[in-house]
Amino acid sequence: MSNKSKIVTPSILPGFMELLPEEQMEFNRMRSIIEEIYQNSGFSPIETPLIEKNEILLAKGGGETEKQIYGIDSKSKDMSLRFDLTVPLARYVSQHFSDLQFPFRRYQIEKVFRGERNQKGRYREFYQSDIDIIGHNSLSPLYDAEIPSIIYRIFTALGFEAFKIHINNRKILNGLFDYLEINDTAKTLQILDKIDKIGLENIIKLLLEIGLSSFQIDSITDFIQIQGTQVEVIEKLKSLPYINNDIFMSGLNELEELNNMVQAFGVPLSHYVFDLKIARGLDYYTGTVYETYLDDFKNIGSVCSGGRYDNLAEYYTKESLPGVGISIGLTRLFYQLNAANFTNCNKKKHSKLLIIPMSQNENLEAAKIASSLRQNKISCEVYMDNSKFKKKMNYANKIGIPFVLILGEDEINSSNYTLKDMKDGIQEKYNLEDLISLLLKK
Amino acid sequence: MSNKSKIVTPSILPGFMELLPEEQMEFNRMRSIIEEIYQNSGFSPIETPLIEKNEILLAKGGGETEKQIYGIDSKSKDMSLRFDLTVPLARYVSQHFSDLQFPFRRYQIEKVFRGERNQKGRYREFYQSDIDIIGHNSLSPLYDAEIPSIIYRIFTALGFEAFKIHINNRKILNGLFDYLEINDTAKTLQILDKIDKIGLENIIKLLLEIGLSSFQIDSITDFIQIQGTQVEVIEKLKSLPYINNDIFMSGLNELEELNNMVQAFGVPLSHYVFDLKIARGLDYYTGTVYETYLDDFKNIGSVCSGGRYDNLAEYYTKESLPGVGISIGLTRLFYQLNAANFTNCNKKKHSKLLIIPMSQNENLEAAKIASSLRQNKISCEVYMDNSKFKKKMNYANKIGIPFVLILGEDEINSSNYTLKDMKDGIQEKYNLEDLISLLLKK
Repeated sequence: MSNKSKIVTPSILPGFMELLPEEQMEFNRMRSIIEEIYQNSGFSPIETPLIEKNEILLAKGGGETEKQIYGIDSKSKDMSLRFDLTVPLARYVSQHFSDLQFPFRRYQIEKVFRGERNQKGRYREFYQSDIDIIGHNSLSPLYDAEIPSIIYRIFTALGFEAFKIHINNRKILNGLFDYLEINDTAKTLQILDKIDKIGLENIIKLLLEIGLSSFQIDSITDFIQIQGTQVEVIEKLKSLPYINNDIFMSGLNELEELNNMVQAFGVPLSHYVFDLKIARGLDYYTGTVYETYLDDFKNIGSVCSGGRYDNLAEYYTKESLPGVGISIGLTRLFYQLNAANFTNCNKKKHSKLLIIPMSQNENLEAAKIASSLRQNKISCEVYMDNSKFKKKMNYANKIGIPFVLILGEDEINSSNYTLKDMKDGIQEKYNLEDLISLLLKK
Repeated sequence: MSNKSKIVTPSILPGFMELLPEEQMEFNRMRSIIEEIYQNSGFSPIETPLIEKNEILLAKGGGETEKQIYGIDSKSKDMSLRFDLTVPLARYVSQHFSDLQFPFRRYQIEKVFRGERNQKGRYREFYQSDIDIIGHNSLSPLYDAEIPSIIYRIFTALGFEAFKIHINNRKILNGLFDYLEINDTAKTLQILDKIDKIGLENIIKLLLEIGLSSFQIDSITDFIQIQGTQVEVIEKLKSLPYINNDIFMSGLNELEELNNMVQAFGVPLSHYVFDLKIARGLDYYTGTVYETYLDDFKNIGSVCSGGRYDNLAEYYTKESLPGVGISIGLTRLFYQLNAANFTNCNKKKHSKLLIIPMSQNENLEAAKIASSLRQNKISCEVYMDNSKFKKKMNYANKIGIPFVLILGEDEINSSNYTLKDMKDGIQEKYNLEDLISLLLKK
């Protein structure tokens, strides 16, 4: 054993989530629900390396990305931690193009890294849970209607009753801007995207600043305030002068078709709205866009966002790869729900049973029983340290295990074991066979 | 859309595994089996950040580690990618000491990074699948007997019949060295650990080089060649003069007790051996050590190794944390088995069924059927692009989907849908209810 001179204070870097085991299990439960539904919907899993070449990650160049990237300091300076799952997906589909079948449906639930300013609930390492459906040359807009059905099933399965998927179509906005002869559509969209954060008045100010006329601004603000049922919104849109614009009309047609298909895919009318102010800042969205809000956790902001894009991978291939996808920021969602006590992390344990031998003489029998139970898919563990009984029961209490099996000399001689239900404290004796069938039921 | 000037060739860095979807699914299947059995044995999952402080990772200082580490190039030079899951575990247990219950049983299946020289089958990013049982101040040696039962169940569940867990106890070797008055036990162990790679003759040469006498070397070589059934090995050890050494005898007692307990935990005699030449180079192992070899893949080397250690976290806490653990190098194992065609990655798909609408008129009905099937836990997808029927069937063939549901006007009018079994090509008509029960059975 080497001599140690000093103790390094154990700590992690700020901005990294690390959970206690019971929290991790709850996190994993949520992760599994998502994964199961992705699988159930025909998406294939992939994983991509956490480190990518800088020429891949920075192909688009400049901007926030370059500032937020974690570089890898090795002999060369050409690799970095990935900052999302979309860039690796684009590289993946381009690289393996001839091995993939299109439409290509993939899910990916993995960690990404961003050197963000450190603040509560913002992590520098976090899970993204992405799905994308990618076509080659074309992908029917009908696929855009399937996405909300997946969002709906996920948040229902996660235990939420009240939430709404906000849907818009960028073509409608683009058509409006085109009709109104607004030139800087990118900046206008970016401003509109901030409406929930800064409010309508500030939006108007910003639009004035970039030089829009009051007629243009009034038209936009009237437009984004259109509300009503799905059919009402569509009818209102049809009554506007903008329908004379081709782009607008194309978006409106897509929205109407999507409305029918979304319902056919099983999303109740109560769980989605057409929200004309949803813009999604990113300029690669070109059609349908989504945001998802939990009624009881509006302050979290959108918990699941995405949309339709014309070309996934223009930096890595000349193939045209339109697609539609969404992302759930699982780490942040988990943090917020956990802080609001919505999750149930307390006293979680994979084991159903702790076997406590009264003395070292019963260890052998305890191991045999554990082996039988595990073969019967009953998770259990044995307390094999030679401690006082009180310490063993204390451990059982602390880990929140549902059942304890107490093994003394009498129990082993009679092959009848004392099972203690830790919830009500009731003890009863069972032989191994009855024990197995009882625990399988519970 | 921005103008692109050049295409960056999509590629990943050498030394990173990346799988096609069907391979990823097989990888995940293996990963799940391991995870399920870990859970079934009462281990809790944890995840730790991929990036740790350098003062944590390099607390022990020097050696190979410092050379292999990937540094993170950010404003500061104080963070790096982790190179194993043991150092993060040590930091984790130290940091969260007062929140954990001991014995603490954790599993962790995550990626680690090492800047190794690039060669086939050696990855710079790879999965480790670890379990550890960690005590506070003490941990009964009986826990050492539980570990082989977990190894046994994992490799059986992964589909292997012929494999052997090689078990030794470092105290036996240390007692032998003590009796023989060998001073440099660390170097001697390191040399012994190479026996499978370089053979007995070279071992003898190396032992001569570090100054051992021929009597010492003869004693060691005689000793490590002891073979036989578990009981035979124990009896032979009992007949040796070394039993007068306390350390030796303590190790022998542990081995004998372990032998009884391993069987009680359900490991057949056919699947473990006592192998006195197993040393495990790492100097933190202090008791039982394990290696696991697959009979049909001996060239892979040990597929699951580990052992007992006196103190997990001496660099991060003054608490005494003895433990026992193992690690499976899942990425490397997967690579080797895949190369040997032992895995079954071909034509894997989460979806059981592809719904093919004959024209755009049947899309709405297709969505409704998909929604019903998914609610009944039948994974499926809809081909919604307006392509030729041949192209749709071609997609079905390429993705290896077991069933196709063909939806034409007749099918929808009669509510009887044509199901094609892609294996035998047989088509039959079913209503929705019968379709669901049929697909649930298949």
